Parts: sequence; C-alpha cells; structure tokens
Amino acid sequence: MKKFINSPDTVLTDALAGVAAAHPSLTVDPVGRVITRAARARPGKVALISGGGSGHEPLHGGFVGTGMLDAACPGEVFTSPVPDQMTTAAKAVDSGAGVVFVVKNYTGDVMNFQLAAELAADEGINVATILVDDDVAVQDSTWTAGRRGTGATLLVEKIAGALAEKGGDLAAVSDLGTRVNAASRSFAVALTACTTPAAGKPGFDLPEDEIEVGVGIHGEPGRSREKIRPAAELAATMVEAVWSDMPLPRGAETIVMLNGLGATPLIELYLLFGDVAARLAERGVTIARSLVGNYITSLDMAGASLTVCHADQQMLDLWDSPVDTPALRWGC
Amino acid sequence: MKKFINSPDTVLTDALAGVAAAHPSLTVDPVGRVITRAARARPGKVALISGGGSGHEPLHGGFVGTGMLDAACPGEVFTSPVPDQMTTAAKAVDSGAGVVFVVKNYTGDVMNFQLAAELAADEGINVATILVDDDVAVQDSTWTAGRRGTGATLLVEKIAGALAEKGGDLAAVSDLGTRVNAASRSFAVALTACTTPAAGKPGFDLPEDEIEVGVGIHGEPGRSREKIRPAAELAATMVEAVWSDMPLPRGAETIVMLNGLGATPLIELYLLFGDVAARLAERGVTIARSLVGNYITSLDMAGASLTVCHADQQMLDLWDSPVDTPALRWGC
Repeated sequence: MKKFINSPDTVLTDALAGVAAAHPSLTVDPVGRVITRAARARPGKVALISGGGSGHEPLHGGFVGTGMLDAACPGEVFTSPVPDQMTTAAKAVDSGAGVVFVVKNYTGDVMNFQLAAELAADEGINVATILVDDDVAVQDSTWTAGRRGTGATLLVEKIAGALAEKGGDLAAVSDLGTRVNAASRSFAVALTACTTPAAGKPGFDLPEDEIEVGVGIHGEPGRSREKIRPAAELAATMVEAVWSDMPLPRGAETIVMLNGLGATPLIELYLLFGDVAARLAERGVTIARSLVGNYITSLDMAGASLTVCHADQQMLDLWDSPVDTPALRWGC
Repeated sequence: MKKFINSPDTVLTDALAGVAAAHPSLTVDPVGRVITRAARARPGKVALISGGGSGHEPLHGGFVGTGMLDAACPGEVFTSPVPDQMTTAAKAVDSGAGVVFVVKNYTGDVMNFQLAAELAADEGINVATILVDDDVAVQDSTWTAGRRGTGATLLVEKIAGALAEKGGDLAAVSDLGTRVNAASRSFAVALTACTTPAAGKPGFDLPEDEIEVGVGIHGEPGRSREKIRPAAELAATMVEAVWSDMPLPRGAETIVMLNGLGATPLIELYLLFGDVAARLAERGVTIARSLVGNYITSLDMAGASLTVCHADQQMLDLWDSPVDTPALRWGC
C-alpha cells in the first residue's frame, strides 16, 4: 500500500487538519469531528447536516457552505459517524427552525442518525430526515437493507440546501430533498478495487481485463463481473441500468452527474460523459445541467458512477442558485 | 490497461465531445482542436491562449472562461499541439489587443508555439509569450531543455488572465505572467507511474514500496527513487525542495497549491496539505491562498505536486478576482 498518510490510525485527524488549513470558510472541530460554516448562517434558516464514513471526499465536508450544508460529520474511513457527532452538529447550527439530516442508506448511518435525531429531539431541536437510496444496482448489499445511497446525495444536498437558504421551512426542505432522491437513479462501474488504509490491500481482486458492474462506493459487489469493453458500451450499460428502473418521457429534463470514483483521470470521465450524453440523446432526454468530476469517491478506486435526476423547474432553479463550498461553487 | 476509452486513436476526439456536452460555456472545435469561450470576451481585451499535450486535465481546457483563458489548444495525449491550432485560436480570439501564449517549457511546445507566434504575426496579430518553468526537480529532462513547466501554469493563467479581464495591455499581462512564474516553484512525488492509452502499460516500473521523487507530469524521471515514507516526511521533502531553490523571508505571503496527479484520493491530498502547511508555518511563511485538488494531472498517476508562489498584493488581488471556468470558479 502506497498512500500519503502518516498512520492508518490518524488518517481522519490528519486529513481534517488539512481541510482546516485549506478552507478558512470552514470551522473544523477535530475532536468532535464536525465541520461547520465559519460564517454563521441567517437566523431562522433551516440547517442541513450530513455525514458518513470518510473516503468519499469531497462528500460531505466539501459541500459545507452557503447554499448547501451547514455541517458535516465525518466518520472514520468507510465507517459511520457516531450519534454524538450529529447531535453536536445539530446544536451548533440549529437556529430554532430545525435541522434536516441527509442520510445515505447504509445500516450504520441510518441507525446512528436515528439515534442522533432522538437525542436532538430531547434537546428541543426539530429534526427531519432525508434518506438517500438511489443506487439501482442491487436491492440489498453488504452494508445495506434496501438500495444504497450514492450520487443523488450531492443533488439532494445542493437542491434542498438552496431551498433552505431561500427560507424554506423544515417540511418544505425535507419534502423537496425526498422528492429529489425519488427522482434520481445511480449506477457505478469499477475498473479497480480500492484500498482502505486499515486493510492495506485492495478490497477485492479484479483480473486485469475485468470490471465490477454495479459496484458500491465501498467496493461492495455489484451485479456482475464482466470483461472490460469500450466506453461507449459501458455508457450504454450504465444508461440502460438507470433507464430500466426509471424510464423517462421524451423531452424530460435531467441533471446528469458523471462522477469519478477517485482514481479515474478527468479525460476519461469526459470521454465517458460524451458517450452517456449520446445514449441519453438517443432516448430523447435533455441534459439540462451536468457535472463531470470527482464528487463522491471511493478512495483510490478507478471507476465512475452515473446519476440521472429527472428534474422539474423548481429543482433546476434551485440547482442554479448560488453555492459557495470548497467543492461546488457558482453564483457567489 | 483498463480505461474508459473506445480506442487509443480516438481518445482526444471522444473526450472533446464530452467536454462540449458538459460545458455550454465553451465552444469546442473538434476538428481544429480549439476550445474557446462560447461568450465573446470584451472587445479590446488581451486574449490568453494556452495549450499542450492532453492527459493533464483540467489543464488547459478546464481553465477557459471569464477571468482566465480565452482559448486552449489540446494536443494528443502527452503530445504538443501543432502550430495550426494556436494560430486558429489566435485568429478566433484576438480582438486587436493582441494575444498572450502561455507555454509550458517542453521542447515540442516551445517550438510549436514559437512557430505559431510567427504565423500569427504574419496575420497582423501581436503575440507575447509567457514561458512557464517552475519545476525545481531537474534542470534538463526527457522532453525539456531547462526546467519543466508544471503547477505554476495554473497560477499564471489565473493571475495574468484576471489582469487581462480588467483591461491590462499586452505588455502588462505578459510581464505579470512572467513575474508569477519567476515567483513560483513546484516539486512532485509519484507513488505510481501513469499509463498512456497508446502505450497500454505503465511508463516506468516502481516497486510496491518505492516512490519517484521529483517526477515530471509525463512520468519523466525525477531526482531519486526512494522508499515510501510517512506523509509528514514527504511534505518536508517537498517543502525543502522548493525552499532550497527559493528561500522566503519570514512573513512572506504565498499562494500554495497541493495538486493531485490524477489517481490520488482527495482525502490524501488534504492530509498531505496539512503537513505541508505545518512545514511552511515552521518557516514563518503565510499561506494567504490555497488550492487542494486535481488541477494539472498526469493521467492515472498516483502522486502529488506542491507549488508555492511568493505573491505580492497585486497577485493576491488578481487571484481573488472573479473567475468562471469549468475547473476554477469563484466570485461570478
């Protein structure tokens, strides 16, 4: 294992020190393991909090800032944060209007956020939860009952975050986030496994000519192991996987994210996006907005995920709203 | 070799199709291989043009937009663009105020941009050139006489681009860019080699416990091959390499970029940046601005480069100026 680390035990602490040094716009509590905005949000604003295992950067800390999250709670690598982190975050950012937890559907995260919601309620904080479960690859998985939460998390955080910034109340923000999740589907393909610092070796073996189709963001098995094939064919596979679960009417407007899993060069992501765009065009779908890059990663896994959100006008308008975070920034 | 490609021969063409599909703010000419802003720049504005081999994305196409480049000319992977690309770009974006070529110091690029400058001059276009040669690792290299141009390219394009946007004339913009380069030093470490689509195998062999110290962005050899060691020690090595070439007075203000070479996860880049920041703090240097992420890559190479720019107030102000490109965006 060759990584820029000091010790497998200090990866998160050391990385948080770097986040703090890089981003004066964030306040990083390295002991409580909570990242918040350095600038206090508008009083009366509904606060958005997310979190999950580390190793998926820029998710979630990179999405803390105006128009998106108020706080992020990073767990150890591929390990859920503990409830204390979320309650600490809730107390730090609640201005009385309540907090929304954005939770990816993994057993540990769901349980810990649920506990945190109860603890926060005991403190008099109103909590609503948006559960993200957009990955169509498998119904249940290593760490999941039901579908896994992956790329749609970014869309939920962006769009619900924008509504919260504009003054939406707790019910409106959580309802919209839930609608965004319901309108989104994702599917990922891995060319290589990832290596956690603790394990020190790849999470699975993948022969030099094979890929994992439908992989999860922790390297959970997908639907099948197949021979590598041209990008245009892989794009067709990814689009078909999403489509078979959520066929769209001709003329449907979409937000499409082609996301790198960590070790795939941007030139390949653009190339694959071009093929995805061609496949969607054949089906009469309009890509109204898009993102190409590394947004929800899986450490050093080579691969890519496709997320398609069937967006209505409110979602598109809120997508375009100003956002000012380390990893997503426009209009500010 | 497992990559998201259709054929080694069509990588650039296919990737440009994806860039065009992803970024309505850009106009992509796939035949002439020129990327320009879709929106015409202000008449009378000095135009900035850069280019170089592909495989370093988002450099340069990802930096086309308000406040940065007017055009980018991508060559094949790790291959200089041809002079026709630069003259086509110059004719497309010159508004009479002249064009500045930002050229990384590699033999092919220098020669082809020089030829293009002569051809453009024949067409009545005033051309100035900024040569970037910031990599302190080696004096001459596989593809270079003198130092290699690497990370400082982004700083030159951002800062000189901002001055051009504000109305700086040809001499002022090119002088400033040259000053930024002179005030910048870079040094890179590779954990793995990269694989070009044409070669199909890694450019060099690196044992499982060794790293290439002082590597170039095409995998050119560095200063030494050494055992992997903790991030804090590698950060010290990188800072010392830059410092020994450009010692800074206490209190010096800097712009620091910790750049991933393509396959290194963001969590590791933040971790390494934290250690770099600590080493610079020990030396009394202020990190006034920073960037952590993948900005000038080397395909699927795992590794990182450090760029330190000793910035004056003008550079900091122009760094903060609005920029609206696919890969760098703030204040717009």
